[in-house]
Amino acid sequence: MKRDPSPPRGMRDILPSESELRDRVAETILATYRSFGFRHIETPGLERIEMLAGSGGGDNEKLIFKVLKRGEKLDPGAADLDALVDLGLRYDLTVPLARYYAANRSQLPRVFKAIQMGPVWRAERPQRGRFRQFTQCDIDTIGSDSPMIEAELLSATSEALLAIGFEGFEIRLNDRRVLGALALACGFAEAQLESVFITLDKLDKIGLSGVREELGEKSLPQAAIDAVAEVMGLLPEDRGDFDATASVLREAGVDEALTQTIKGVAQAVRSTADGRFRVAFDPFLVRGMGYYTGPIFEVQYKDYPFSIAGGGRYDEMIGAMTGEKVPASGISIGFERVITILQEEGGDTGADVRRLALIVGEDDPLDQAMAEAARLRERGYAASILPRRRKLGPQLKTLKDEGYTHFCVYRHDEAEQSVEPTD
Amino acid sequence: MKRDPSPPRGMRDILPSESELRDRVAETILATYRSFGFRHIETPGLERIEMLAGSGGGDNEKLIFKVLKRGEKLDPGAADLDALVDLGLRYDLTVPLARYYAANRSQLPRVFKAIQMGPVWRAERPQRGRFRQFTQCDIDTIGSDSPMIEAELLSATSEALLAIGFEGFEIRLNDRRVLGALALACGFAEAQLESVFITLDKLDKIGLSGVREELGEKSLPQAAIDAVAEVMGLLPEDRGDFDATASVLREAGVDEALTQTIKGVAQAVRSTADGRFRVAFDPFLVRGMGYYTGPIFEVQYKDYPFSIAGGGRYDEMIGAMTGEKVPASGISIGFERVITILQEEGGDTGADVRRLALIVGEDDPLDQAMAEAARLRERGYAASILPRRRKLGPQLKTLKDEGYTHFCVYRHDEAEQSVEPTD
Repeated sequence: MKRDPSPPRGMRDILPSESELRDRVAETILATYRSFGFRHIETPGLERIEMLAGSGGGDNEKLIFKVLKRGEKLDPGAADLDALVDLGLRYDLTVPLARYYAANRSQLPRVFKAIQMGPVWRAERPQRGRFRQFTQCDIDTIGSDSPMIEAELLSATSEALLAIGFEGFEIRLNDRRVLGALALACGFAEAQLESVFITLDKLDKIGLSGVREELGEKSLPQAAIDAVAEVMGLLPEDRGDFDATASVLREAGVDEALTQTIKGVAQAVRSTADGRFRVAFDPFLVRGMGYYTGPIFEVQYKDYPFSIAGGGRYDEMIGAMTGEKVPASGISIGFERVITILQEEGGDTGADVRRLALIVGEDDPLDQAMAEAARLRERGYAASILPRRRKLGPQLKTLKDEGYTHFCVYRHDEAEQSVEPTD
Repeated sequence: MKRDPSPPRGMRDILPSESELRDRVAETILATYRSFGFRHIETPGLERIEMLAGSGGGDNEKLIFKVLKRGEKLDPGAADLDALVDLGLRYDLTVPLARYYAANRSQLPRVFKAIQMGPVWRAERPQRGRFRQFTQCDIDTIGSDSPMIEAELLSATSEALLAIGFEGFEIRLNDRRVLGALALACGFAEAQLESVFITLDKLDKIGLSGVREELGEKSLPQAAIDAVAEVMGLLPEDRGDFDATASVLREAGVDEALTQTIKGVAQAVRSTADGRFRVAFDPFLVRGMGYYTGPIFEVQYKDYPFSIAGGGRYDEMIGAMTGEKVPASGISIGFERVITILQEEGGDTGADVRRLALIVGEDDPLDQAMAEAARLRERGYAASILPRRRKLGPQLKTLKDEGYTHFCVYRHDEAEQSVEPTD
């Protein structure tokens, strides 16, 4: 019986060449983060459902894949479906990190620097480039509120991006407190901030006029909308000019101490750039998640309509788990996006791997053929032993089409040294 | 509000030192398998439930974590719980591989050599050393029925085990057809074979007398039980003596062609051993899974009561997916078992990592401190920037306890070269 072999809707199989690219990228990122003192940890793919629900994940909480309870008789007639569920697949790596820190705190350093890399699941409507299982790659520092933490997170991430072949990207910095102070100074009320931020977050997509329009539709005070638009107009062309931006914000009524923190982080990160990337101040950068409390950041590459990394400080989230306030800040590399760009740009193709087919007849002495394969591996070939087919010519052609780069046909009746890989 | 931060029942958080060990082991296995021409692939953690159920996974199918349907109104009053479910978490990597091969066959080599490494989930009753999420690490060759395939699988796996620090293990070989022929020759009926195998599989645990007893309780023919016991008694002390074992089997009525295949594989693998591991013929080796059709194998290490690797040929499984017969053979390293043994033996501790804490005051110039950290990284330190606390002595002591091996306190008022790592 033939069965439909496709993977679940919105999920995908990864072919060898992509898998190898993913491995190289993952290993490079991991090695870079380790050189900055971050340490790899792992948590399960499943979490208790009550841990995922109500964790500040916003819309993502609506996208949880829920797992049926096990080990007890379930009442299929239960009025409430949720009564049948006790686990869910994680939709990000931040909620599991907070739980992990709370659970293992006594065994972790006071300032804990974590790397996480792994799959997350979201039941999004499948669409081009968006999948229901995808890899996230996060670093987080828990236990310090110093801006040094942000400088190190951004420096480590920029080195990781450079190491995997990205150059000329732009790090955009802001601070949730700058954004809040600016909105208040423009005349919005505290209670309106969340709604204002949601619209400002769309600036890149809908432009200044779109933002004005949407804020107007929300019946927000026109004077405040005009004031925000005025500030946007006054910002310097060069977003890398922190002093000019800070000066506009000061004029608009934002406390200079806040912008100075951002400037300090920017200067430190920029000092490591050596022309390879830029650092900009974007006072209208929002970042979607509600849990950010301080500096926030995104990394933009060329004209791609999405950021390739992003994060920020979230000083309140872990406290919700541990019962006492624990400052934390983190950044996530958009692993799937990075892979997509690398595939499009075609830089790292792994073409340097020498795949050798050692073709062996069923009657040849297998032990000698295997010894030959071992010698070829020592010389740097990825050497496969393959049974000889009836017609050698077509077999060699097929193997070449399949990606083998070198071939040798084992002949046990000749001297060893005659067995040489040939293209 | 404080919440219970423990992971789900039967699952675990992995602390940095274990995670680093796991990464080193995984990278070494992957590199070894790649050198044998195997190629890494990935499949989603979730599969459609109809793919997992009825896939020949035996008892494992009872342990599937089932996922609630999404994107439609569910009727919680449905009489049948299964109507609410459309996905499940994979319980092994073999079923997904068969599906992957069927789905992507046109893009894969005719003889396809796959590496898979990733989490699987089973809702087993939690017990010591057994977890509900664990990592599997498989290689499989699809598309050839040559015994060369088994020789290569076993050679690659023994090299991988040697590379991660295992020496002196024993590879035990058998063939499902030898086992079947032997049982028939002893006088069991075809229909009794499965039941006989289930009992023989327990030989290591319950011994010969236990096996006799259990076979007797199953009301199997006493003459056949006696004949099996007699063969067991006749086997040579030295299981590495293939000729002696083959001779006992021949006397008992097993076709010699079958044992010669096993012997050929054994000789080829043994020729690569160079005294580092042993190869044995165990005609009573069963391997649990019902889908095996030819050679089967296990790797035993010291006196551990479990195998550290195992697998076999399964020529029928993929055909159930593709509609035409496709031969396949594979072996799985027990990744979690291997990690447990390495932790117990304490060989690879990763103690060579030089973790350096660069302690920086909030008023020190952060850009210069970061430049210093970059220089230290270039010199091979994993260098963390850490904010200086009020009392340096206790801070240094804490950092040492936390695993930092080198320390420097940044002083911007001194010459650069004075900043040296000190133990």
